[in-house]
Amino acid sequence: MTDSESFFTSSDTGRSAGLLKHAQSVTFEEPLKLELGGRVEKVHVVYETYGRLNDKRSNAVLICHALSGDSHVARHDDDDDPGWWDLVVGPGKAIDTDRYFVICPNILGGCRGTTGPGSVNPATGRPYGCDFPTITIADMVEVQRRLVDHLGIDRLLAVVGGSMGGHQVLSWACRYPSRAAGVIPIATSPRLSSQALAFDVVGRNAILRDPNFQNGQYYDQPAGPTVGLAIARMIGHITYLSPQAMREKFGSTRLQPRDVPVEFEKKFSVGSYLGYKGSEFVERFDANSYMTITMAMDLFDIGDSPAELARSFTDCDLRWLAISFTSDWLFSPEESARIVYALVRNHHGVSYCNVQSNCGHDAFLMPNELDRYGALIGDFLSDLSGVERTESQDEDDAPLKASPSSIFCPSRPRRLDYDRIVDLVPKGASVLDLGCGSGGLLSRLKKRGQGVLLGVELDEQSIIACVRRGLNVIQADLNKGLADLPDKHYDCVVLSHTLQAVRDVEGIIDGMLRVGRRCVVSFPNFAYHKLRSILAEQGRSPESSGLLKFKWYNSPNIRFFSIRDFEEFCAERNIRVHRCIALDTEAGREVSDDPNANADMAIFVISR
Amino acid sequence: MTDSESFFTSSDTGRSAGLLKHAQSVTFEEPLKLELGGRVEKVHVVYETYGRLNDKRSNAVLICHALSGDSHVARHDDDDDPGWWDLVVGPGKAIDTDRYFVICPNILGGCRGTTGPGSVNPATGRPYGCDFPTITIADMVEVQRRLVDHLGIDRLLAVVGGSMGGHQVLSWACRYPSRAAGVIPIATSPRLSSQALAFDVVGRNAILRDPNFQNGQYYDQPAGPTVGLAIARMIGHITYLSPQAMREKFGSTRLQPRDVPVEFEKKFSVGSYLGYKGSEFVERFDANSYMTITMAMDLFDIGDSPAELARSFTDCDLRWLAISFTSDWLFSPEESARIVYALVRNHHGVSYCNVQSNCGHDAFLMPNELDRYGALIGDFLSDLSGVERTESQDEDDAPLKASPSSIFCPSRPRRLDYDRIVDLVPKGASVLDLGCGSGGLLSRLKKRGQGVLLGVELDEQSIIACVRRGLNVIQADLNKGLADLPDKHYDCVVLSHTLQAVRDVEGIIDGMLRVGRRCVVSFPNFAYHKLRSILAEQGRSPESSGLLKFKWYNSPNIRFFSIRDFEEFCAERNIRVHRCIALDTEAGREVSDDPNANADMAIFVISR
Repeated sequence: MTDSESFFTSSDTGRSAGLLKHAQSVTFEEPLKLELGGRVEKVHVVYETYGRLNDKRSNAVLICHALSGDSHVARHDDDDDPGWWDLVVGPGKAIDTDRYFVICPNILGGCRGTTGPGSVNPATGRPYGCDFPTITIADMVEVQRRLVDHLGIDRLLAVVGGSMGGHQVLSWACRYPSRAAGVIPIATSPRLSSQALAFDVVGRNAILRDPNFQNGQYYDQPAGPTVGLAIARMIGHITYLSPQAMREKFGSTRLQPRDVPVEFEKKFSVGSYLGYKGSEFVERFDANSYMTITMAMDLFDIGDSPAELARSFTDCDLRWLAISFTSDWLFSPEESARIVYALVRNHHGVSYCNVQSNCGHDAFLMPNELDRYGALIGDFLSDLSGVERTESQDEDDAPLKASPSSIFCPSRPRRLDYDRIVDLVPKGASVLDLGCGSGGLLSRLKKRGQGVLLGVELDEQSIIACVRRGLNVIQADLNKGLADLPDKHYDCVVLSHTLQAVRDVEGIIDGMLRVGRRCVVSFPNFAYHKLRSILAEQGRSPESSGLLKFKWYNSPNIRFFSIRDFEEFCAERNIRVHRCIALDTEAGREVSDDPNANADMAIFVISR
Repeated sequence: MTDSESFFTSSDTGRSAGLLKHAQSVTFEEPLKLELGGRVEKVHVVYETYGRLNDKRSNAVLICHALSGDSHVARHDDDDDPGWWDLVVGPGKAIDTDRYFVICPNILGGCRGTTGPGSVNPATGRPYGCDFPTITIADMVEVQRRLVDHLGIDRLLAVVGGSMGGHQVLSWACRYPSRAAGVIPIATSPRLSSQALAFDVVGRNAILRDPNFQNGQYYDQPAGPTVGLAIARMIGHITYLSPQAMREKFGSTRLQPRDVPVEFEKKFSVGSYLGYKGSEFVERFDANSYMTITMAMDLFDIGDSPAELARSFTDCDLRWLAISFTSDWLFSPEESARIVYALVRNHHGVSYCNVQSNCGHDAFLMPNELDRYGALIGDFLSDLSGVERTESQDEDDAPLKASPSSIFCPSRPRRLDYDRIVDLVPKGASVLDLGCGSGGLLSRLKKRGQGVLLGVELDEQSIIACVRRGLNVIQADLNKGLADLPDKHYDCVVLSHTLQAVRDVEGIIDGMLRVGRRCVVSFPNFAYHKLRSILAEQGRSPESSGLLKFKWYNSPNIRFFSIRDFEEFCAERNIRVHRCIALDTEAGREVSDDPNANADMAIFVISR
């Protein structure tokens, strides 16, 4: 890639207008009744497909594009133009066109072939222009549903989309939960933030007040509202990048603008970039479509409060994978988390990862984080399509390496811990595993045939490992509490070998007791006689030997307490202790004689 | 305040155009030579003053306004119009007009009386319009300097300003360091971020391409570029608020716009707000001034890299107080931190607080955080003006309450600690105190007549206490390291009673040893015999009694180690131990017999 290409590269592929080479199309003669009233008499849909629909018609993946995207999600062959998601869609890629039949339609209201404001209004014989009705995301989805029917597909494997494509995914799940096995909303929101909405309003105002807008009837005029549309696009481009990404891209060349042939300010490098992007956009996009689509996005609202949103999701009992990006400020991680906790309230199967990224909202279109978001998408689709994975022994031990949380290293510490916990959990009980690592315990419970299972974990790699195992796991920091989870929502909440690494001990225990009917807490016993003697006799901070050897200065463990300390803690707070199992993990047995001295690990069953 | 007022209230006071009632003015006949070439033949300056200049002419505070502000910083009397900073400026307020003589001039290039693009160009007899030259922040400051000369003031007590007002403050410090005792840059930056710059560019493009802009010569036209200017202002208003503030203001009333008489979209509440603000702005602001002033702001650049910026500050040896706000994304805290560390590199006296706030960039104009930023400004000015404070006994003990970091509570723990450390530090040595609390140790060193002293602290209230004591303190999280500080920058780096509360022990010790020639580390000894016996005999996590009684689950202390552990730590890393002083703080004496068992506290002097 030349330097100049890299300067102008972004999520925006900058394709020129015109019909797409591999596009197919269908016209639905039945009028489309719109959500907000009115109708579109006849809907023409342009779409592209990739791969082959299998005999069971069970491998179809619908991809919903965002504001300025189109049906050309990927190249069809080496000679083809680049697609907007070539990184993810193609043979052997995360959405593997060797395995899946991919469908990507242009959206209703757009300007890439599917009916929109630039289409001819049958009532007048002229383009709709401002007479094109106000449409919603649900209307776009209704058109996609017709297309899916037309293709003879009863049930999609998955519906996938980012940004406004994610709004379509959410709408699919709410309207047609039985028509897909799973959904993947990426970098999206239950409704736009007030900030994102505000940027859209300013963009529309720039178009609306462009003298060439002519109330939307500019198609037969010498010029359209190109300045207003370019201004709107410039605002958009700023919001797609993180401040860090802008600093990296434009910081060192601040006063070295590119000489681009545009009539916008070219004093600064970032100005020449925005001027170029804005001018390029008006060549391929219609201002009326911009007005129509952004309004549909701005009106999208499946609930703001947790209760409203949970209500919207009542029947959405399909499998969910939600992905956000840490530096995305247009569709912030908090918005994705709202979606996730509303699903959890309904006990729907959901996994969620907030992928670490500096790329901002564009991250899902960029290669930087592909290793992680691509892996999540690929593994989730594999699991949806029922591919059995054979778990290796290594994998079962993975949590030991990935998320060390014990000051001990006996030969098989977690397994003994897990064995007892699995025994303690009634079959069929719903279980929340806090600090689940890469899913060792959940995996055992799942194999046994458990009911609702959900893991909570902070570490990104552990989340990816859980998704690979087909487990439901959501990313959250336990130190921030469990406030998003409803009261008595799980039969059993497990905190295994994690309490000693938690800063807010009281908060997490209070949260567990509120959220779970019974709670299981396991932890290393700091008063184990071998540890006592290290301090008492050697005058040194206790540590153990072996693989998980931590020093006082680099241990993830920051709370040191004994069985007796924890008993007192419970007694002072009127926490009921149902059982206390004390273990000597080195000997691999339970301890009954003076557990506070002879056990190196304890498992408490508690409730309030 | 009525609901409607609150809806439209923001930093923007919305004053109507026209001459200000209490404004004074002066015309400088000598041509102003501009930084980027060219000149303004004659400069007229409109300004307001408050309070009385004292006989020594030493109590003058210059306030620099931001983009859309003006000289009317506060009311002159009860009948007067509100000022833009009435919260801070007035009798008995943080900038107390009973004590200080406040000067606030309208900036060069503006449209409130001081010479700008709307002024008559003597060469043509018509308004300058686009013929007004490109000016810089330095040019604005040059005009202010002339005004200060005109008022007969040799040395200002302070120059204060936020946002672009902060750019003027920085420029004052760089150009005329001897003309002020101190400076207070608030919510500002050494240069705009690429993101902030990009928003300015889009705003200017909206004006530039408004057909009524007419290349800036619109003064005799029926209409000016009001749409472009309103669009620019709308973008600005979004960037002044945090996403949380926008959610609070517009989230619940999303689809309930106010019926405002504007020709912009009024579908959403946030849209009616922006439409109102944009339309109101064009009534009182000139588009050419907007172009001129934002360009001056965008060109402001006193260095991006730490080295460049430190070079700009070489001679700025006055007292500094920098303030930022946590939720400000237009002038982010990182930008203020860049300024602060460049000053620290020069050993200039600087305090810095990143005030916790949800209000975004507007925070410095809002009442929400006034208790903290107002206190910082008021105390800093008091200290600058040489008001002696009598420290109470309570205050000297404040760190014990404000920032508890010991598991011990003997009767006088920190004093014994401090006494020894003060003895260890050579007179005249430069000292960095990490985790300085409210400045107990620094205060002792200062009283003794020390050289350069700087504290680092995370807690906001402790920072405020340090500033009240006239100490230099900067806000930083020790767990994020000391990377911004240069090698061997201090004779002595102190970490007293803090290491046990630090997560990244190796990082902080490495950082200290790099930054300091000698380092002093004091910590509680976990192998103290009383603590040993609690674990050994009672099987409980050790704790001590008294005021600072922490439990295993709520202690700020997360690292437990003994004198012996720390000795081994140093030995393994080739850290030289110059001295180890072991203390029994209960008995108030040094321990020589088996310190690892008999001392409850240790002080190490180390280097690498």
